[in-house]
Order: sequence, then C-alpha cells, then structure tokens
Amino acid sequence: MAEDVGTRPYHHGDLRGALLAEGMRLLTTRDADALSLREVARAVGVSATSVYRHFPDKQALMTALAREGIARLGAEQQVAAVAAGGGTAGFAATGRVYIRFALENPALFRLIFASPVLGEPGDPNRKDSEAGLLLQAHAAALGREQGRDAHVQAIRSWSLVHGLAMLMLDGQIPADLDFADSLLGQAPV
Amino acid sequence: MAEDVGTRPYHHGDLRGALLAEGMRLLTTRDADALSLREVARAVGVSATSVYRHFPDKQALMTALAREGIARLGAEQQVAAVAAGGGTAGFAATGRVYIRFALENPALFRLIFASPVLGEPGDPNRKDSEAGLLLQAHAAALGREQGRDAHVQAIRSWSLVHGLAMLMLDGQIPADLDFADSLLGQAPV
Repeated sequence: MAEDVGTRPYHHGDLRGALLAEGMRLLTTRDADALSLREVARAVGVSATSVYRHFPDKQALMTALAREGIARLGAEQQVAAVAAGGGTAGFAATGRVYIRFALENPALFRLIFASPVLGEPGDPNRKDSEAGLLLQAHAAALGREQGRDAHVQAIRSWSLVHGLAMLMLDGQIPADLDFADSLLGQAPV
Repeated sequence: MAEDVGTRPYHHGDLRGALLAEGMRLLTTRDADALSLREVARAVGVSATSVYRHFPDKQALMTALAREGIARLGAEQQVAAVAAGGGTAGFAATGRVYIRFALENPALFRLIFASPVLGEPGDPNRKDSEAGLLLQAHAAALGREQGRDAHVQAIRSWSLVHGLAMLMLDGQIPADLDFADSLLGQAPV
C-alpha cells in the first residue's frame, strides 16, 4: 500500500498522538491481530525507527490503544449516567452505552477484553477492569438499596451486560439495542 | 515435529473420528487460530491428501470441532440438570457446568462462540445457539413461574452466565467456580 505514504504526512509535534489516532482508525477496519506497527508507521508517513521511540513493539501500541478505548468507554458512560440519574435508569443507561460501544467498536472492544494487553490473569491491575467500573458502581448502589451483597450485585450486572455485548458481537443473538434496553430496564438485576 | 509421525499411527477405519480426536487434543494446547490442518494430519500419521477427503479446508475441521464441543457442553448440562432437578437449582447447575466447561476448555469454548464457524451473523442457524439452549430452557421456565417474559428471562440468564464465563476466561475477574455459584444461586435471575 505504498500509495498511503505521504497521504497523511506527519508534520506536527505529537508523533505519539498521531500513531495512536492512526491505530484507532485502523481498528475500525480490522481486528487487532491483523494490525502491524509497520503499517501504522507507513500510514502516518514516518519510518519504523521513529515509531520504535514511542512504541518498542506492537504490544506497547495495543496496550496504549486499549487504555485509550477504556477511557473513551468510561467517558461515554459518565455522560449517560449523569443524564439518566441514579438507580435502575442509571444502570440501564450505562449498560446501553457499554453495549453500543461494543457494537460500534468491535475490534477495540475485543482488544480491551480479549487480549492480554492489560496484564496477565492474576495481575491485580487486570481485575475488576476500569471498563466496567461505572456500570458496577450503579449496580452496587442498587444492590445496597435492596439490601443485597453489593459486590455480588456489581459483578452480576457487569456479567449480564458483558455477556449481552459478547453474544451480540458474536452473532449469537440479534444486535438489537432496544432489546438490550428491555433486558437492562428490569430491576433487580 | 517429524517425531510425531508414526507415534500415533492411523490403523483403523474411522479416519474422520481420528482427525476430530486429534483436533480436540490439540485444542487443549493452543487456540484454534494457531492450529493447521497439516499439523493434525501429521499427528494422526496420514497425508494431507487423505485429510482433504474428510475436511476440504481448516474451516471445515473447525466447524466440526465446534459442533462436537456444543454437543459435549449440552450433554454435560443435561447430566447436571437431571441431578439438580428444576427451578433455581437446575438453572444454577447448568450455569455452573457452562462456566466450568469454558474454564476447562478455553480454546474450544472460544471456537464455539468467537469464531464465525457456525454461520455468519444474521444466519438463522447462528442465533440462539444450541450451547445455551438448556440453560435458557431452565431460565425461561423460572420466568414463566414468576410471571415474567420467558424469552427475555432466557436471554438475560444466558447473558449473565456467558458474561461471567468470558470475564473469567479473560482474567477480568478471578476464575472462581464457588463465586459463580453464589451469583447463579440468587433467584430471580
């Protein structure tokens, strides 16, 4: 794809940001497995050597993209939660955002959860992922109101939403946000 | 790995079965992506040409392995459901089997759900996968008893169990079957 060289020439100061932006753009076209650091460098119009200064290997770029994805998902959930208020409506709103994010960004969503980029299983940084935090916070609050175990309630709710997203992404059930709403709007979770 | 040739020589009539068994064995050592038809042929001790008579390409073998996995998962769920009886205990038992199966056979579980081997999204054969059927049947029965929408209840329950399995497989929460029990034992789902 030599024709890509120079079409998006890098001519400003933030090469790291430019590489991340290009990585995000490429993730809208294919899965993370099918991406290479060389391809990102080529699309930005810099040499592989320049890239290595910011990302020594593909995993370093993928980790940065996953963290960026988690931050975006968290921000979208916050906006939705503020608009919806607390309680069941807040939980349903954050759950809907979570599922919509998965359907709109399948490769990024899979990168966040299915790749070991954020630490190996057992790594304390890996557990109770930030991506599910706001969702879990709403579910835990609901659980406390109902006199149930808040931690169990938080993980149950996260599992429900994550499972719905995965079954829709994998084509096991129709990818239908309205149907998701009807499932998430039923309290107790 | 030439040393594998002849160590498991194929000397009986059921080559298809031997290839499936070897594929299943290899899936306990690595993900489906990392398997090749040639490797399976070599391990069974037959030529690639002999394999093509049964499986024209890798996808054909993967589809057969996924179907075999679904049948195994279904059979294990049936045994557990009969032992537990119906109601919440039946649901919790089938859910526990589902999660244990995922943790014990991660590559096979991912092959069943995450690969498009059982049909593309939108394919009617792809929806409401058999792998979740017994689980869904228990949840639907519970839903009817409670006067709730049986279909919604079935998908909610499947999503909860599938989400738990995926979050444990991906190291987001500890892979703890007792914790799963405490989540699944709470009715209503």
